[in-house]
Amino acid sequence: MTIKDIAKACGVSVSTVSRVLNDHPDVSQSVRERVRSTVERLGYIPNNSARDLVRSQSDNIGVVVRGQDNLFFSAMVKTISREIESRGYTMVLHFIGSDDDEVMAGAILEREKKLRGLIFLGGRFDYSAETLAPVGVPFVCCTYTNCFGSLDEKDYSSVSIDDYMTAFQAVKTLIDLGHRRIAVVAPATNDRSISELRYKGYRAALEQSGLEFDPCLLAETEGCFEMPQAYRGTEKLIDGGGDFTALFALSDTTALAAMKALEDHGRKVPEDCSVIGIDGLSVSEYSNPTLTTMVQPVEEMARHSAAILADMIEHRRKSCHLRLEAELRPGGSVKKL
Amino acid sequence: MTIKDIAKACGVSVSTVSRVLNDHPDVSQSVRERVRSTVERLGYIPNNSARDLVRSQSDNIGVVVRGQDNLFFSAMVKTISREIESRGYTMVLHFIGSDDDEVMAGAILEREKKLRGLIFLGGRFDYSAETLAPVGVPFVCCTYTNCFGSLDEKDYSSVSIDDYMTAFQAVKTLIDLGHRRIAVVAPATNDRSISELRYKGYRAALEQSGLEFDPCLLAETEGCFEMPQAYRGTEKLIDGGGDFTALFALSDTTALAAMKALEDHGRKVPEDCSVIGIDGLSVSEYSNPTLTTMVQPVEEMARHSAAILADMIEHRRKSCHLRLEAELRPGGSVKKL
Repeated sequence: MTIKDIAKACGVSVSTVSRVLNDHPDVSQSVRERVRSTVERLGYIPNNSARDLVRSQSDNIGVVVRGQDNLFFSAMVKTISREIESRGYTMVLHFIGSDDDEVMAGAILEREKKLRGLIFLGGRFDYSAETLAPVGVPFVCCTYTNCFGSLDEKDYSSVSIDDYMTAFQAVKTLIDLGHRRIAVVAPATNDRSISELRYKGYRAALEQSGLEFDPCLLAETEGCFEMPQAYRGTEKLIDGGGDFTALFALSDTTALAAMKALEDHGRKVPEDCSVIGIDGLSVSEYSNPTLTTMVQPVEEMARHSAAILADMIEHRRKSCHLRLEAELRPGGSVKKL
Repeated sequence: MTIKDIAKACGVSVSTVSRVLNDHPDVSQSVRERVRSTVERLGYIPNNSARDLVRSQSDNIGVVVRGQDNLFFSAMVKTISREIESRGYTMVLHFIGSDDDEVMAGAILEREKKLRGLIFLGGRFDYSAETLAPVGVPFVCCTYTNCFGSLDEKDYSSVSIDDYMTAFQAVKTLIDLGHRRIAVVAPATNDRSISELRYKGYRAALEQSGLEFDPCLLAETEGCFEMPQAYRGTEKLIDGGGDFTALFALSDTTALAAMKALEDHGRKVPEDCSVIGIDGLSVSEYSNPTLTTMVQPVEEMARHSAAILADMIEHRRKSCHLRLEAELRPGGSVKKL
């Protein structure tokens, strides 16, 4: 039995059957069900070995994921996986720690798994041509750019939000509600990476509104976006007698940890302190109170990253830099002062 | 440059260097750092192509992950990935929806990716030899068994907790605190799967304590473990005038959604209603209040699943059924009545 038999039995085209089998979204529910039940009834199993045999290269795409417990990246991996598979590639996933070197990890993976391309989920913003020399395949920086680096725009692709502006908007939201003493929980302030950009957005929002920055209101969380460190950072702010009515956390999970630390120390959110984050995780819709946050378009970012990489591998384009918009998701964690 | 040069430069064995490069946990911090910095300094990149060339088979292991937004499985994937890679295999990850057929998905993946073995993260408990016929490689059922099915124990492996007993213990915890009216939020009660087992554990705990089951205190969540459905299910319990002082949710994320629904409807947790879950996610340690839950040993389960599968592929054992213990993690979401 071949895919043609299934198509004939269902009265649809071969490419429609292929789309259903690859979980491509662009098929109506009724056709999807018809094809699936026929596949099941006839016991058909797609066999792509013939195609594989004539192909000399692997079809592996590497995805290097940074961070220990990053729920935002976990959410992206599902969509990236689906998009990579639907284009006939195989996703090879590799996790690295917050401090690990994604370029070296990617280069090793490239050789071990004979990759055709790479998606970096998280990385440094300061690449040079030399840093990237070990990587010999097309790659997409997903969730970050190279704004602190010297890499030629034509030599790589990126899909991200504008981290500086998104942080600016988050803090501006708090200022517009009347807050003047706004604390910040940040992995680092000068790591030439996502933290520095978002921290600078925070500083710029203060400055634009004529508010002075108070170093007592900054908690650095040991360079990482993990919850225990964010919890301890917030505790330090509170123990230091920090007098603040609002708090900006650079991510949703660190915002949840900050809310927890505030509540544990008798400061109610949002009555005693407003909290805002960046990401828009589904789990933060179910926190008490619901987290107010800047939502990154996770599906779109994942989809575009895979599509751009496929275009690069298949020589349809050399590079592409996509900047997407984050949007405020109102919640219950901020209040007017 | 070869791996031997790195070993010589560091004064350690070749296998130690290999373990560091594969992120194997069993290496001291100081040796790990020494090897990594040497690798970086000398610009060494492992090249396994030679090994790959003489190998006729693929080294792919498929991991089929069930559910849309399953944070518990996301946490497992990292460890499974590391364990699979450290044994020289490549993980091929595939996500399916809550209603999809994992066996058919696995069988298709097996042929498309020439798999050597499969790990199913979540699945049905009622396999027969016929259902499993399309799968031609060794497989491990991770987080579930075949207790409702007829599959011969020797023909597959499984790693899981005792779902019935774990649910029993969760509900017993509430009963021991004085609760008599205990609601349950469950995907289904008779799906021959994990929900049925945990639901039966709930019923057994009530019965053992001489408590009558009240159908008004059951909320079914459309067969799935997703948060929106759990939220709506809990709302129905509340709207139905359900008179309960405690609630058992079959997973952590559904417990978080239930807590949210309770708070949104003016019932404080734990003052007005105690809540307990099963899983032990890190994010539920940061909920307000901290979720009291039965912790599954996620690292151990992931580690053993990969190890057992490797043993099966490499003919060191034919099958293995491992039952691990869940442990109560006390939180702030339950109180004595």
